[in-house]
Amino acid sequence: MSDRSYNFFAGPAVLPEPVIKTAQHALWNFKRSGVGVMEHSHRGAEMTEVFDQADENLRALAQIPDDYSILFLQGGASSQFYMLPMNMLAEDQTADYINTGTWSKKAMVEAGKFGKVHEVASSAADGFTYVPKQANYTWSGAPAYAHYTSNNTIAGTQFHTEPVPPDGVPLICDASSDIFSGPIDVSKYGMVYAGAQKNLGPSGLTLVIIRNDLVERAPKTLPTMLQYRTHVAKGSRFNTPPTFAVFVVGEVIKWLQGFGGLKAIREYNEDKAGLLYDFLDNSSFFSGTAAADSRSLMNVCFRAAKPELEETFIELATQQGLVGLKGHRSVGGMRASIYNACPREGVAKLVEFMKEFEQTHK
Amino acid sequence: MSDRSYNFFAGPAVLPEPVIKTAQHALWNFKRSGVGVMEHSHRGAEMTEVFDQADENLRALAQIPDDYSILFLQGGASSQFYMLPMNMLAEDQTADYINTGTWSKKAMVEAGKFGKVHEVASSAADGFTYVPKQANYTWSGAPAYAHYTSNNTIAGTQFHTEPVPPDGVPLICDASSDIFSGPIDVSKYGMVYAGAQKNLGPSGLTLVIIRNDLVERAPKTLPTMLQYRTHVAKGSRFNTPPTFAVFVVGEVIKWLQGFGGLKAIREYNEDKAGLLYDFLDNSSFFSGTAAADSRSLMNVCFRAAKPELEETFIELATQQGLVGLKGHRSVGGMRASIYNACPREGVAKLVEFMKEFEQTHK
Repeated sequence: MSDRSYNFFAGPAVLPEPVIKTAQHALWNFKRSGVGVMEHSHRGAEMTEVFDQADENLRALAQIPDDYSILFLQGGASSQFYMLPMNMLAEDQTADYINTGTWSKKAMVEAGKFGKVHEVASSAADGFTYVPKQANYTWSGAPAYAHYTSNNTIAGTQFHTEPVPPDGVPLICDASSDIFSGPIDVSKYGMVYAGAQKNLGPSGLTLVIIRNDLVERAPKTLPTMLQYRTHVAKGSRFNTPPTFAVFVVGEVIKWLQGFGGLKAIREYNEDKAGLLYDFLDNSSFFSGTAAADSRSLMNVCFRAAKPELEETFIELATQQGLVGLKGHRSVGGMRASIYNACPREGVAKLVEFMKEFEQTHK
Repeated sequence: MSDRSYNFFAGPAVLPEPVIKTAQHALWNFKRSGVGVMEHSHRGAEMTEVFDQADENLRALAQIPDDYSILFLQGGASSQFYMLPMNMLAEDQTADYINTGTWSKKAMVEAGKFGKVHEVASSAADGFTYVPKQANYTWSGAPAYAHYTSNNTIAGTQFHTEPVPPDGVPLICDASSDIFSGPIDVSKYGMVYAGAQKNLGPSGLTLVIIRNDLVERAPKTLPTMLQYRTHVAKGSRFNTPPTFAVFVVGEVIKWLQGFGGLKAIREYNEDKAGLLYDFLDNSSFFSGTAAADSRSLMNVCFRAAKPELEETFIELATQQGLVGLKGHRSVGGMRASIYNACPREGVAKLVEFMKEFEQTHK
């Protein structure tokens, strides 16, 4: 039996075990270079190959068109909340945001510091338990861009089709918590960004996939580091990038390719989430909190019929090697984050444990 | 014999081998938690302990006073180049900068986007081969702050005493390439910042030590992530920080404590640099490029009497397991970066190799 628990943390989160083993070896002596992967110059041959391969493999994995740049930045999605409007929203312009919870709201607040923000739709009145449908979107006149959060870790909701903004309006997506959990048609987007620490690798790296024409929107008076064009021009190496994190993300991409690609991981994720949602639908003790048609494949949020037992549930689960099941502090309850690297057997074991707990405590 | 080379890269750079071994173990199962260190929630007990310990040990190591905050940020020193003036330089104010090379100049350019920049002194006319002395500083009237770069990786120069700005003017230091290479009196500074990838850990983490009263200078209209106060208030965990990098830096701090602290590492660094400079002073083939009184203990830059042989020198050195000796692309020549974690035996081996090379090629 492994000495590792099943890890349901919302992020930083579980990584594929083969990737961890590769990283362990690389730390000491990367590719027999005599130098560990953390200790290599970001401009040397070894690290250049890491960056080039990550770019190439990502393009192949997600069929990213040639007119898009792939950037490895720092600062998390929270830094994109301001960098995006700083680059693409003039003071007299409006940006359209779909509000599906905490992260959308934070993004809107930062955008409001640069231009006007229009709320296209919101599920706030229902505690963000669903994602609003296209039929209920009200766009502003001619927004600079349209922004949404594809998966909402706190409420456990997810868009199952991407919103369609008015013609010519770039669609921007914060895909931090479901990027590459299935196929994505990048050509529908102006920009997709994601903090790495859920589906891609360790924290401290932010992936940005941006259509090249949008890069030139930014005023050149911005700080150099805050212009997308700086990082596009320098292949994400204008300054020293988080080399180890890029290496790990590169290995995760290879792992996804070996898994069979994005269609295969999507089926795996549907199967895993299905185990949990099926159980929740049939349980008289546990219940899911997200509306059925908005359920996330990545974060399954649920409550117990007796909320006073939730702490006990989380404690006993931890003792069984099922860790990280506590819901976000703003909503309470339980949350199982079952990202790409979460193995099916972990989810099956969790369902077994929930069954037992229900028998004992209902 | 070790399968690791002697690593003279300027950054990312060599790390202490015991730290790498600890990191290898932690990646798989951190402190028997069943979860790898990259996969732990930044708000969980294990990672909270990592952050608290790093803060506590850093304070002890460098005697950081209580009225200073220690921040673990992202984006490198290059992000501090704009974040500093954004927070502390109003449009009608002036900031004073000592110009000692590429990095100082970049910092000045970014500051100029927010307020006025005054050059206190510059060694540009002499190719930045020395650091200007206090007697030659011309301060502006009442600068918002005074900024200098304590060690210059490209020219191989270093300040051996800190500049003294006019009374009441906060001294700000970019100490990226010599932080904790010896004792530092933090109380003399308003803020000290450093990218981690030279003396502290992997790239992707920026250490900021800031006096608390300065934190409140920033307009609250700035993006939330770009206000120092945000990170002070949230203990560097407003958003997801680079947890693995913080862990590694924490281990490097422990290693420094085990080494005997900053006085001990300073003696070690003087001894190591002395080996190289003594050899250079007595060589008729190799010569150091920095003025004797401004020589860096961290980056020893040198040239060969026959520049056409420099490429051969670097190649043969690499074959001998002495890697990363190429000078910065902007100045050419050779550079041995001998940070804290660079072992004395590596420097001794380099000197031996240089002697042999001189014998063969002079």
